Amino acid sequence: MIAEIITIGDEILIGQIVDTNSAWMAQKLNAEGIRVKQITSVSDDRQHILSALAGAAQRADIILITGGLGPTKDDITKQTLAQYFDVPLVLNQEALNNVLNIFKRYNRPMLDVNRMQAQVPQNCVVIPNNNGTAPGMWFHEGGKIYVSMPGVPFEMMYMMEEQIIPKLKQTLSLPVIIHKTILTAGEGESYLAEKIADIENDLPANIKLAYLPKMGQVRLRLSGYGEDKGVLQQAIDTYADRIIERVGINFIAGEDLPIEKVILNLMESRGLTLSAAESCTGGYVSHLITQHAGSSSVFLGGAVTYSNQLKHDILGVDNETLWSFGAVSEQTVTEMVEGALRQFKSDYAIAITGIAGPGGGTDDKPVGTVWIAAANAAKTMVKQFTFGNKRAQNIERSAIAAFFMLNTLLKEATI
Amino acid sequence: MIAEIITIGDEILIGQIVDTNSAWMAQKLNAEGIRVKQITSVSDDRQHILSALAGAAQRADIILITGGLGPTKDDITKQTLAQYFDVPLVLNQEALNNVLNIFKRYNRPMLDVNRMQAQVPQNCVVIPNNNGTAPGMWFHEGGKIYVSMPGVPFEMMYMMEEQIIPKLKQTLSLPVIIHKTILTAGEGESYLAEKIADIENDLPANIKLAYLPKMGQVRLRLSGYGEDKGVLQQAIDTYADRIIERVGINFIAGEDLPIEKVILNLMESRGLTLSAAESCTGGYVSHLITQHAGSSSVFLGGAVTYSNQLKHDILGVDNETLWSFGAVSEQTVTEMVEGALRQFKSDYAIAITGIAGPGGGTDDKPVGTVWIAAANAAKTMVKQFTFGNKRAQNIERSAIAAFFMLNTLLKEATI
Repeated sequence: MIAEIITIGDEILIGQIVDTNSAWMAQKLNAEGIRVKQITSVSDDRQHILSALAGAAQRADIILITGGLGPTKDDITKQTLAQYFDVPLVLNQEALNNVLNIFKRYNRPMLDVNRMQAQVPQNCVVIPNNNGTAPGMWFHEGGKIYVSMPGVPFEMMYMMEEQIIPKLKQTLSLPVIIHKTILTAGEGESYLAEKIADIENDLPANIKLAYLPKMGQVRLRLSGYGEDKGVLQQAIDTYADRIIERVGINFIAGEDLPIEKVILNLMESRGLTLSAAESCTGGYVSHLITQHAGSSSVFLGGAVTYSNQLKHDILGVDNETLWSFGAVSEQTVTEMVEGALRQFKSDYAIAITGIAGPGGGTDDKPVGTVWIAAANAAKTMVKQFTFGNKRAQNIERSAIAAFFMLNTLLKEATI
Repeated sequence: MIAEIITIGDEILIGQIVDTNSAWMAQKLNAEGIRVKQITSVSDDRQHILSALAGAAQRADIILITGGLGPTKDDITKQTLAQYFDVPLVLNQEALNNVLNIFKRYNRPMLDVNRMQAQVPQNCVVIPNNNGTAPGMWFHEGGKIYVSMPGVPFEMMYMMEEQIIPKLKQTLSLPVIIHKTILTAGEGESYLAEKIADIENDLPANIKLAYLPKMGQVRLRLSGYGEDKGVLQQAIDTYADRIIERVGINFIAGEDLPIEKVILNLMESRGLTLSAAESCTGGYVSHLITQHAGSSSVFLGGAVTYSNQLKHDILGVDNETLWSFGAVSEQTVTEMVEGALRQFKSDYAIAITGIAGPGGGTDDKPVGTVWIAAANAAKTMVKQFTFGNKRAQNIERSAIAAFFMLNTLLKEATI
């Protein structure tokens, strides 16, 4: 089954935004055994959109379109689809109710342009948008499926996951395809590959292993294709178990979850609490944790102590320590993590202090130098890391390294 | 002058990597007055590449191609270009010397596949690659310019900046193109559109206005095309000034910057410091601020007080207040923001407390209820918001609303 993605909007073509939607959609489609043949970004121009649609329909069975559904004049996707299918636009009551509800909820007067968002080409099935005013549209014409979605990422994502993917599976007969993801942390891609080389060589032709590295983590994805679901699942599970055993301490989870969510699940099941003391990560660690629903049952909170004054005032780091060893040191991170345990009264704490860059580096402590600690009442683990010279990466890698250290401490605590 | 970008490689189509190259290239091209008409991502497949080339040549004057120049079997861009132009591949001595030098520098044995990287279609001008073994290729055929570059971002970027862009400017007479972005916050897309409808209707045919909404912010982008740079700049500036005046308090910046960066710049120029007290945003506000290099000169830090205990212990919120009014209340957010000012000794502070969801809502305070405060020594601003029922959006919109409130307070303070 072949799909194509068409993204509509000048903002991509002038480089103002990076098209992250397409990669996300391609991943979801591939996971269901639908191959993406081409991704095409076109301008908000009627003739151009029409020819992109016609071209895609020649190559693919499924054409997914994002963008150009907003209420303003430059948004012409809907009118163009009506022209493409040679049908009029009609008012859809369900879509109108959705728009009315949204304006009611926010208690704001509705404009004519918003009412027009409920107009759709006559031949479409409306896909409700639970997160915005523009409805999605599903067309089944000439043996092809066309789906038009908003370009706003979270609107598109919810629509894809909750409605489009299930509807595609229902409508098409897709092959049996099973993915199994193993999350690892703390070891690089090539080292992992060497560690499990013999298992990878053993894999049968219908099971592929992909390495998906990302900032201190590597996801190993086994993808199996076959006829019999039970047989395929058993084969995948057997290889997954071998890999997990081999990977050892670097194994985080046998599913595709963020590492901090794995930790939250574990800590919640054991009734444990956590706090964080962040310097160079500047709130990012707390943000990763608190983005998850229910995190408040584990995470009490923490401090972003960017200044030395706050390291002293909130966490109780000794001014003498800061003076003698510096803010980025084993001694400071130890006092930070132990201060967090004491002041925030949590069972576990993590602390990070480092030089994210681009400024602030010295010969002794170049940009990328980061001290990380994890602690409970019985033990404090501390380690120095040397990351690179990119600020965003240093923040990201520090967070992942802190979670890996915490996960290791949690594992030890059960032994 | 019209360009198209063709990216070649399966890794984009399976969603393993996000195509960041195209946005970068599009920005560079637009800055030189070259409009990008279409971006097309195709697989490593000969027929598919040939038809993408033919399609692009029908629409554009310049076709920029990235990817598929590596030494492995799946890299077929060069062979396909030779077929497209109906010319043989020939060994290029300059390209070979480059490959030899690279292998000599790293002291590694050269393989046959690497020597073959110095083969290029006979009709091309070789563009030296200072950062890798694959040469770039420049073709001028049938009145069109085709450029093939490696897909590795830094190899492509150096090639574009140092060689392709200068060569394009030398070869073509380019029109003038000017973009101007106006960042607004605190008002929705359709309200803004209504507010400035008459200005938008006044725009001449060579100036376009685009709305780029994102979670409580809308960027307005004026794009002008013309012959005379001075005349066009003046026209754009005039319309931009009219829009900025009309938008009033919702105007944040006359350039394409994140709102928190605008605030950091303003506060740094005035020598002011900032702290944050976050509950439902859970560190996200601090993270947005600290992702920017140099933020430590303004941002002292803050607290993520997820639990009531920490609201009391770190920020000094009265237990009586928490008990009587609840953690999500005008009284609590006021004590949070004033506690932050007092405890963290900053000139300004922001505080956020709300119910991000999906749990925790009540009839009185449904999910999405958020109280936000901004304060300096002279004034505390407090406002209640009612966002939606999605956790990630509630966090994002709360952060933007807090920055908008802080920006408003900073503006007032100069009056």
